[in-house]
Amino acid sequence: MTESALNELFIDELKDIYWAEKHLISALPKMAKAATSNELRSAIENHLRETENHVSRLEQVFEVIGEKAVAKKCEAMAGLIKEGEEIISETEKGSITRDAGIISAAQKVEHYEIATYGTLRSLAGVLGHDEAIELLQATLSEEKNADQTLTQVAESSVNRAAKNEKK
Amino acid sequence: MTESALNELFIDELKDIYWAEKHLISALPKMAKAATSNELRSAIENHLRETENHVSRLEQVFEVIGEKAVAKKCEAMAGLIKEGEEIISETEKGSITRDAGIISAAQKVEHYEIATYGTLRSLAGVLGHDEAIELLQATLSEEKNADQTLTQVAESSVNRAAKNEKK
Repeated sequence: MTESALNELFIDELKDIYWAEKHLISALPKMAKAATSNELRSAIENHLRETENHVSRLEQVFEVIGEKAVAKKCEAMAGLIKEGEEIISETEKGSITRDAGIISAAQKVEHYEIATYGTLRSLAGVLGHDEAIELLQATLSEEKNADQTLTQVAESSVNRAAKNEKK
Repeated sequence: MTESALNELFIDELKDIYWAEKHLISALPKMAKAATSNELRSAIENHLRETENHVSRLEQVFEVIGEKAVAKKCEAMAGLIKEGEEIISETEKGSITRDAGIISAAQKVEHYEIATYGTLRSLAGVLGHDEAIELLQATLSEEKNADQTLTQVAESSVNRAAKNEKK
């Protein structure tokens, strides 16, 4: 297995998302704390608990493929987290527009993860990492659900409430 | 309109994706040139033509909302493009594993755009930017199709062909 170039790509992607998930565990509580509406704060807090589980699932994936769990800096996720912090610093505390901005940043994060776990699950299938497939699919489903929950929060309440908010 | 904080968020997101799309016009030809399979090269070249159109649609959106088209550096897209370049430099020229890596990087780019255009379209609806909605929806649909095309290229040929490639 270690001689396969595709397996090396798979492991590189794992290290990248492992870094990303670990950094989200630090970033999500700040986003939850900055949120104005209880609905958004609660959605982010729920996803934080899922994210902790994603980290441990990744550690299981490393284990079942016989690799040491190593994190490799993910430049894209670093950029995404920075964008989220900028949105918080550029919006007023207690404003509902800040929530719309946090949702926007969080959905970009979710989509980064959806793309990555989609690739990982697909590569795990081709490489015959059968135990890894289920673990990766479980997280992929939760990322997709988290994205949908954020859309619901935006469209059911936040965007409309923010519509007439002044600067 | 300019007094609305949500409209300001909308304009910031527009500036961000305008920068991203313009930079993709430079990045996509390099990805196409680095691709090993004709199928992937052709998919990227098709999407390059769509991307040129996305830039002009964004300029139309700026126009219909009465704002000057300005690009603002998008840290996440800068990170995504860098990741794509790293994958090319870390894989062998002419290898099919390189194609699997390019697809992975390109799908992360597509998902960034899907998240961003989803937010923009949703905000355009709430803000009553009726002409902008159609323009943003047209691009969103093309980004989703581009993502699906990449999945097809990966799953129908590239991943399987790359499976046994040695380092």
